[in-house]
Amino acid sequence: MMVRYPYGKKFTTVNEAEPELVRKVNYANRGMSLESAINDTNIYYLEHDIAVVHKKPIPIQIVKVDYPHRSAAVIKEAYYQQASTTDYNGVYRGRYLDFEAKETNQKSFPLKNFHDHQIVHMRRIVHQNAISFVLIHFIAYDELYFLSANNLFSFWDRMLEGGRKSITRDEIRENGKQIQFGFMPTIDYIKIVDELIAEQGK
Amino acid sequence: MMVRYPYGKKFTTVNEAEPELVRKVNYANRGMSLESAINDTNIYYLEHDIAVVHKKPIPIQIVKVDYPHRSAAVIKEAYYQQASTTDYNGVYRGRYLDFEAKETNQKSFPLKNFHDHQIVHMRRIVHQNAISFVLIHFIAYDELYFLSANNLFSFWDRMLEGGRKSITRDEIRENGKQIQFGFMPTIDYIKIVDELIAEQGK
Repeated sequence: MMVRYPYGKKFTTVNEAEPELVRKVNYANRGMSLESAINDTNIYYLEHDIAVVHKKPIPIQIVKVDYPHRSAAVIKEAYYQQASTTDYNGVYRGRYLDFEAKETNQKSFPLKNFHDHQIVHMRRIVHQNAISFVLIHFIAYDELYFLSANNLFSFWDRMLEGGRKSITRDEIRENGKQIQFGFMPTIDYIKIVDELIAEQGK
Repeated sequence: MMVRYPYGKKFTTVNEAEPELVRKVNYANRGMSLESAINDTNIYYLEHDIAVVHKKPIPIQIVKVDYPHRSAAVIKEAYYQQASTTDYNGVYRGRYLDFEAKETNQKSFPLKNFHDHQIVHMRRIVHQNAISFVLIHFIAYDELYFLSANNLFSFWDRMLEGGRKSITRDEIRENGKQIQFGFMPTIDYIKIVDELIAEQGK
């Protein structure tokens, strides 16, 4: 499936019709397209001195390393580890920014996209007065939303109290802010961060 | 070589007498002991709600991955990449913290411990009003210093202008602040961050 973005940018999305094995392989790359758009945005922010935000490397557990004579070390056996924090962090005007980006093919956003320890991490940084949020991409509607961590926590807690295991699109619309895709930068989340700072009078 | 720390803590340091191959193997682990002390400190800060600081995973370039049926993906070929940023970042009272930890067996601190792009990264975040610094451990004296990024830049620039390629211990003493090793936390760098914030009236 190919979605055309403004200014002719192409977005490849996960094809759900693929066979099990291929889907498994793709799983690690799920959200790659959204990831590329965010990376482009971060490069734009970096080059224009707006903010310094990087994606953290994927944590990998290394089991076996070879050291060939006069060559670089070669990792021969390693495994992907589950990230215990969020994917992106950095600095904007002295303030600590920290966020996660998620995509869904569903009509509601399933909360199982988050792991417990990611929520724990986000609670800790919000307690430290960080600016924390999640970018949610509804593939079916091709809509992107900015949802603050505090809003995410209230839906998470509703689930823990036996409520629904997802956030509806209407709830995200009501509590979050939609981000229009742009040309440069592609996903201008700092604009929403500015609004958030202004609202909170930080 | 075994250095005993206050309260009987042991610190293993790099043995320079080791043969070439072993030294190569150890190189990737160089500073591991300092790293453990910093990790312990960060866990202490986390558990006491003082700050949320994590070491970034080592960036790894993955070349080959196997997907055995019904098992987790196994990375079969991968290489260590040079970090383009610093090792540690996080949040302290809303502020973005970012630092690097280095050890030396020399009597002066060799600036080649840093790569160009790390300095570029530190200049960018300081421009964004981040709190950035380096922790320097002189193994021979078993002394640890906190040197602000701005001080590091002035020594770096001196080198670029043809000056010495290292920072002497006296210069670090004069421009940095010594950190006494403690029990809990082991390396209380937030204390110095507080002094820095007070000095800068941030």
